[in-house]
Amino acid sequence: MNEGKSIRCEAKEAEKLVNMEDWKKRVLSKSLKVAVIGIGRIGLPTSLMIAKAGYKTFGIDIKQDYIDKINQGGGNPPIKFILDEPELPKILKEVVSNGKFKATIIFKEPISLADIIIICVPTPITKQKVPDYTIINKVVENIASLKDIIQNKIILIESTVGPLYVKNKAIPLIENISGLKINRDFWIVSCPERANPGNIMKNLISIPRIVGASNEFACDIVANFYKNIFGVEIIKVSNPRTANSVKLIENIFRVVNIAFANEIAQLSRLLDIDYMEIIKGAKSKYNFLPHFPGPGVGGPCLPSNPYYLMDDGYRVSFTPNLVRSATEINQRQPSHIIELIFEGLNEIGKSISGTPIAILGIAYKPNVKDIQISPSIPIIEDLKQFNASITIYDPYFKGETLLGINIESDYTFLKHNYPLIIILTGHEEFKSQGFKDLLKECNQLKLLIDCQNIFKIMELPKKIYYIGVGRPLKLIE
Amino acid sequence: MNEGKSIRCEAKEAEKLVNMEDWKKRVLSKSLKVAVIGIGRIGLPTSLMIAKAGYKTFGIDIKQDYIDKINQGGGNPPIKFILDEPELPKILKEVVSNGKFKATIIFKEPISLADIIIICVPTPITKQKVPDYTIINKVVENIASLKDIIQNKIILIESTVGPLYVKNKAIPLIENISGLKINRDFWIVSCPERANPGNIMKNLISIPRIVGASNEFACDIVANFYKNIFGVEIIKVSNPRTANSVKLIENIFRVVNIAFANEIAQLSRLLDIDYMEIIKGAKSKYNFLPHFPGPGVGGPCLPSNPYYLMDDGYRVSFTPNLVRSATEINQRQPSHIIELIFEGLNEIGKSISGTPIAILGIAYKPNVKDIQISPSIPIIEDLKQFNASITIYDPYFKGETLLGINIESDYTFLKHNYPLIIILTGHEEFKSQGFKDLLKECNQLKLLIDCQNIFKIMELPKKIYYIGVGRPLKLIE
Repeated sequence: MNEGKSIRCEAKEAEKLVNMEDWKKRVLSKSLKVAVIGIGRIGLPTSLMIAKAGYKTFGIDIKQDYIDKINQGGGNPPIKFILDEPELPKILKEVVSNGKFKATIIFKEPISLADIIIICVPTPITKQKVPDYTIINKVVENIASLKDIIQNKIILIESTVGPLYVKNKAIPLIENISGLKINRDFWIVSCPERANPGNIMKNLISIPRIVGASNEFACDIVANFYKNIFGVEIIKVSNPRTANSVKLIENIFRVVNIAFANEIAQLSRLLDIDYMEIIKGAKSKYNFLPHFPGPGVGGPCLPSNPYYLMDDGYRVSFTPNLVRSATEINQRQPSHIIELIFEGLNEIGKSISGTPIAILGIAYKPNVKDIQISPSIPIIEDLKQFNASITIYDPYFKGETLLGINIESDYTFLKHNYPLIIILTGHEEFKSQGFKDLLKECNQLKLLIDCQNIFKIMELPKKIYYIGVGRPLKLIE
Repeated sequence: MNEGKSIRCEAKEAEKLVNMEDWKKRVLSKSLKVAVIGIGRIGLPTSLMIAKAGYKTFGIDIKQDYIDKINQGGGNPPIKFILDEPELPKILKEVVSNGKFKATIIFKEPISLADIIIICVPTPITKQKVPDYTIINKVVENIASLKDIIQNKIILIESTVGPLYVKNKAIPLIENISGLKINRDFWIVSCPERANPGNIMKNLISIPRIVGASNEFACDIVANFYKNIFGVEIIKVSNPRTANSVKLIENIFRVVNIAFANEIAQLSRLLDIDYMEIIKGAKSKYNFLPHFPGPGVGGPCLPSNPYYLMDDGYRVSFTPNLVRSATEINQRQPSHIIELIFEGLNEIGKSISGTPIAILGIAYKPNVKDIQISPSIPIIEDLKQFNASITIYDPYFKGETLLGINIESDYTFLKHNYPLIIILTGHEEFKSQGFKDLLKECNQLKLLIDCQNIFKIMELPKKIYYIGVGRPLKLIE
């Protein structure tokens, strides 16, 4: 078993077995075929870009109605995350109608036709905060069970996995089940996706890709192939474990720095300092990069990526204490918001129970239709525990029912009867002049808790109390 | 007592008492006089820039021979840190000879002549890692004891202090000792220095300055004055505690990110991944800022600044756990280097005791003549405990005796008899082609430990073992 300790040392072995020139020709002539397993938020855009570049592409997923919607060009109502990626529907229609892309729930046939099998399934964490490799392991096992079919194919993993996953789990799984041998019968390449929801299509054609492979042949082919499709810089690294570390570290860098912002914001409040003023100053230093406090981190990456790294750390008896501390700080941030709510309500002589509360924004970040692991969930659950009467508005979930609450269809309800407004997500709509004007018409408003610090103090209605994250309670005068 | 809760609210009070226009005129006409207390690494360059701009400036310090050297234009041999700032000697000679600058050990007379009193004394930490305010408190007390002299003067603090220092310590000290009243009889302004040793003169005229004052009058005057002298952007913040937080947070941002690099480097070694390869990939993401692992942090700022923040955190019953964890990781990094030394020596079948060890670089960072709180100190001390036989070379300390060891006058001694070379500081000289060529002539060299990862693997001599920080042991082939 060999994960590819260095690119160079295994080149000769590979050359014996494969016709490099033939593969390269098929990349260039676009006769190469591709199967993408998992065509969700990342897998679908990736598939479509491959198909748009001219490669016959099969998108495999598990639910028939979802597959049908995709083969109908997005469906009506469309698949939810398509709303976040405005360029997606046009490309989808184009590649479905020209036959370059086909979505299917059938596994074996597309795999048998494909030269490159791309894995884009989710790698979440369990409720106990442990990496959950169940889905990707099942996919790898299913691939391995197709012994006669997968020979001479490249398996490309885009899903986020721990550094040790390919070497210690994926390769042994495939070798043991199929009896095939890595770098002789098949290859594994890690090229972790690096796109951010809301900007996936733009990111795919602008952010360089990191390629680490089981040997130099597979590294070269995937580098050529992705360069051809996305037109971005390709950075080759020595092996899959390095490629997967890159993905984890760049996201954990954000986790650590957001935790630092959250920690300093908590301290700022106690020291009667406005965190946003600290940032105004600090960002003028050439080697400082500003990060902002908030209600916590959410989404598919930031809450789970640290656990994928820590989990492999534990395997080699190493606890990354800084990463763990950062992760815990961000996870406790929703409780800190509850603290701020109590502090503010106390100032206006009210309690959570009995005070109509308006919540604006529940998505895990601005301008996306996504509440996965959103800090709004524990905050709303906590408020419910305190018998809160909650009204929610989020422009991305108008009219839907979430967390047992109907989402309002616009924010005009705020005008009456809401002493407390809490902004959880910094959607563009809440930064608009229209919204600022409306706030001034909210005649019952006494307390505004701004978990995204989207307001300048001078823009706020007079005679209300204002609390930001890291911005101490202030009576606006 | 009032530290200036907001700039705006105290403007009227100030206007009653001072003639703003008169102060502004004296800034413009350069008739304003200045006393700088503490003319070391920061205070001297600051004094000289003020004097060069045309203001009569007194530099106050405590040692007569140091004062004499400065009044002689730097002395011979010159004051050590002058070597790190090539522009300094010329300006020093200019302002000494034209009479705009005078260094002195006398305290009272310059203070009586000055309109603005600038405090630039060191604020170190004790061996028990507690902020040591002894020096600055003594200076503040001495100023306060000059009751009749300091009326209508601005006291400007450039020294790094905790957020609460001005409000809870400096103002009460002065008010209690002198009987004077803040914002009526005197003003306090924080404008923390932001320059990095080795680039102080450049930084002074390029990095914006943060000004937070006891009231708007003092903030305006100092903003005008520093704008006039340094020509940089002036960022006004609400009060001294915010200004001092900016200084601490921008440095602690580096502490946290260097600790993150050190932690991931330790994990990389255990996972057989090259940290430098991770960075090569991660830095291609638009929101990632690379930081590098090493033997730990040193110098006047990074090792001590976190304690100034934590200390004020403890006062409000808040432990910044992330900052504490980061600080501890960096402090334990020298022990990690000892681990790497043992691992490498084991590979070549040797022990610390009995193996001639060459150490290159002892300064706390590249290209400065400064070993304060340098991680080289605990590393060398530890090696001595293991009966090491150590030879040291550092281009900034040629021929001197430090830590009981004579520093070599060049690095040619390496050619013979040194199985182990340890690079602790990444001075430019060690990155030169000449040095790389010499390494290949070191016929006894078996192990190179590169604590700054300054080498590319391909540049190294063959058949030696190489260990970087976060770069696993490797036999160079």
